[in-house]
Amino acid sequence: MADAGTLHDAFVDELRDTYDAEKQLMKALAKMAKAASSTDLKTAFETHLEETRGQIERLDEVFAGLDEKARGKHCEGIAGIIDEGKAIVEEDFDENTIDACLIAAGQRAEHYEMAVYGTLIAWAKAMGHSAAADLLQQTLDEEKAADEKKALLMKFELKLVA
Amino acid sequence: MADAGTLHDAFVDELRDTYDAEKQLMKALAKMAKAASSTDLKTAFETHLEETRGQIERLDEVFAGLDEKARGKHCEGIAGIIDEGKAIVEEDFDENTIDACLIAAGQRAEHYEMAVYGTLIAWAKAMGHSAAADLLQQTLDEEKAADEKKALLMKFELKLVA
Repeated sequence: MADAGTLHDAFVDELRDTYDAEKQLMKALAKMAKAASSTDLKTAFETHLEETRGQIERLDEVFAGLDEKARGKHCEGIAGIIDEGKAIVEEDFDENTIDACLIAAGQRAEHYEMAVYGTLIAWAKAMGHSAAADLLQQTLDEEKAADEKKALLMKFELKLVA
Repeated sequence: MADAGTLHDAFVDELRDTYDAEKQLMKALAKMAKAASSTDLKTAFETHLEETRGQIERLDEVFAGLDEKARGKHCEGIAGIIDEGKAIVEEDFDENTIDACLIAAGQRAEHYEMAVYGTLIAWAKAMGHSAAADLLQQTLDEEKAADEKKALLMKFELKLVA
């Protein structure tokens, strides 16, 4: 019988999940930018799409540092969140309400990523992968900033809606 | 043609999604408590299960305050996160690594809820539903505290694993 998998194996698994999640998000963000009515919201989604591209490159670096092949493994968690986002666009809501829902969907994706990167950083540090931890921290900081930006956009949007 | 749905309609929709998410989590938390090896982690999941029961009662109150029937609508977002949690238990990892993965899964669920309750509170306030906003804030505070507790458990777990 093979030895039980270790934290290293779980870390590589989680990186593969995250790699796939980022790729799913690239496609979703392009659609969300298209669906948004407010120019500021469109821009926020487009900017985050660019950031996501950089986040994938960082994951490439993390895989390389571990001598592991960079590849994804279907991420169920983000798939569910993206499906919810898709459903919003089909709702018969007024434009401003759709925008408020798109912001909310974006924030759910960002929170998912905050949890995931928080875990990856804690695990990387515990195993002494400090270069990986630094790279992953940069992404976590971007996700927190993207969430705060969306919270501001939500405040503005709600002045138009309510 | 019917009028387009408003923020009120989106709010009720989101409450139904959340009502279902909490019910899905009740079942999942019981399974996670069973799967955990560490007694502290088992207790953390059981405590959060009790809190979840209270969170459902708060949602009942919010629905009542809006004169809406309390009912759920399948929540895709949390379903994906729960499926990921289930997959962990089937992995051939050592006990401490499984516990670290269960903590990570719990944190993903808590972050999802933080995003959702953050949205619900912003929308409730914008529409002047201050009693609903207060109830939803209590749940948001519980989710943040549960996430912080898990972060501490992760630190402890990682000392055993790495």
